[in-house]
Amino acid sequence: MIFSSSLLEKAVNELAKLPGIGKKTALRLALHLLKQPENEVSHFCESIENMRKEIKFCSRCYNISDKHVCNICDNISRKQDVICVVENIRDVMAIESTQHFNGVFHVLGGIISPLDGVGPEQLNIEPLIQRVHNEQITEIVFALNPNIQGDTTIYYIGRKLKEYPIKITTIARGISFGGELEYADEMTLAKSITNRIPVERYINPVA
Amino acid sequence: MIFSSSLLEKAVNELAKLPGIGKKTALRLALHLLKQPENEVSHFCESIENMRKEIKFCSRCYNISDKHVCNICDNISRKQDVICVVENIRDVMAIESTQHFNGVFHVLGGIISPLDGVGPEQLNIEPLIQRVHNEQITEIVFALNPNIQGDTTIYYIGRKLKEYPIKITTIARGISFGGELEYADEMTLAKSITNRIPVERYINPVA
Repeated sequence: MIFSSSLLEKAVNELAKLPGIGKKTALRLALHLLKQPENEVSHFCESIENMRKEIKFCSRCYNISDKHVCNICDNISRKQDVICVVENIRDVMAIESTQHFNGVFHVLGGIISPLDGVGPEQLNIEPLIQRVHNEQITEIVFALNPNIQGDTTIYYIGRKLKEYPIKITTIARGISFGGELEYADEMTLAKSITNRIPVERYINPVA
Repeated sequence: MIFSSSLLEKAVNELAKLPGIGKKTALRLALHLLKQPENEVSHFCESIENMRKEIKFCSRCYNISDKHVCNICDNISRKQDVICVVENIRDVMAIESTQHFNGVFHVLGGIISPLDGVGPEQLNIEPLIQRVHNEQITEIVFALNPNIQGDTTIYYIGRKLKEYPIKITTIARGISFGGELEYADEMTLAKSITNRIPVERYINPVA
């Protein structure tokens, strides 16, 4: 790509560093920003810089927050004794948007994956054990992606929590709503048969 | 989408204003930026703000430039008497990257499109006529997209330039290299038959 302006070239190169944005898309974005009023572009940049500089992580659950303790941990109407363990912040948002979970979270910041060089010590696992140790926790719900890394992480943390008298659960794996049996993989189908649930609980789930 | 931080929410909303970026992608970009070192994010924002504030448009051809006159207009080894008329800056870049044009450009900044409310007076057409009037121009090459708007623009400008003794050409329309005859639309095929060229000119094109 031949640029007639080094300023444009620099901006395109920076935009192209974003995940999923190639050079051509970056150029389209840069030319779009060029057409916007100057104060809107300033506003755009400010909001990103402010986010990077000011954002905090909740000291209790490691969720993203504007304050030292996040809104979820700070909310006394939520069950503070039920912790949902998730990989990252996007998972918190996904579960929150279902409005079907009334406990609190713990963000691991990743998942145990030796092939990617991620071991337990790089994740917020020790703080989770400390929470269980110090607080009156009754249940840990694992909401991790259903794959080898997720299962390894559940196994590892589960062993660490063995000595504590708490209920340890994981979100159900099964056929997706709207999915079709014949196209489901064997593993999923097998798990959904093994972990079958009474129909009355399916129709009237207990929150 | 439920955000646990208003700073994150603001940044996501700003990113989602970019063309082709939805809320989910914006969130992914924002979380990516959050993971980067603070100085890299500052650099990212700076490059965009600088571009918006400092970039200039060439006073002669309206191409993007760091200076008052762009590198192409400033290059004496280029044919300053052959002007290629294009819709926007991306078209300049596309033609420049072919390295097959050695004249100068004129960026219209759009195309005549009454349905979109774009008339000749919103485009840099008058400055083009002035250039032809004041400079020793020998040829105008229209490199506009082959559609109704492009043809209208060519027709409009062509009429304005009728009194000047210059050659007016347009880039060839025909079957794309690698294209297949049977899948070409009738209009393109018809034009490529009507405007057929001698084989020796096809094999040994004159620059």
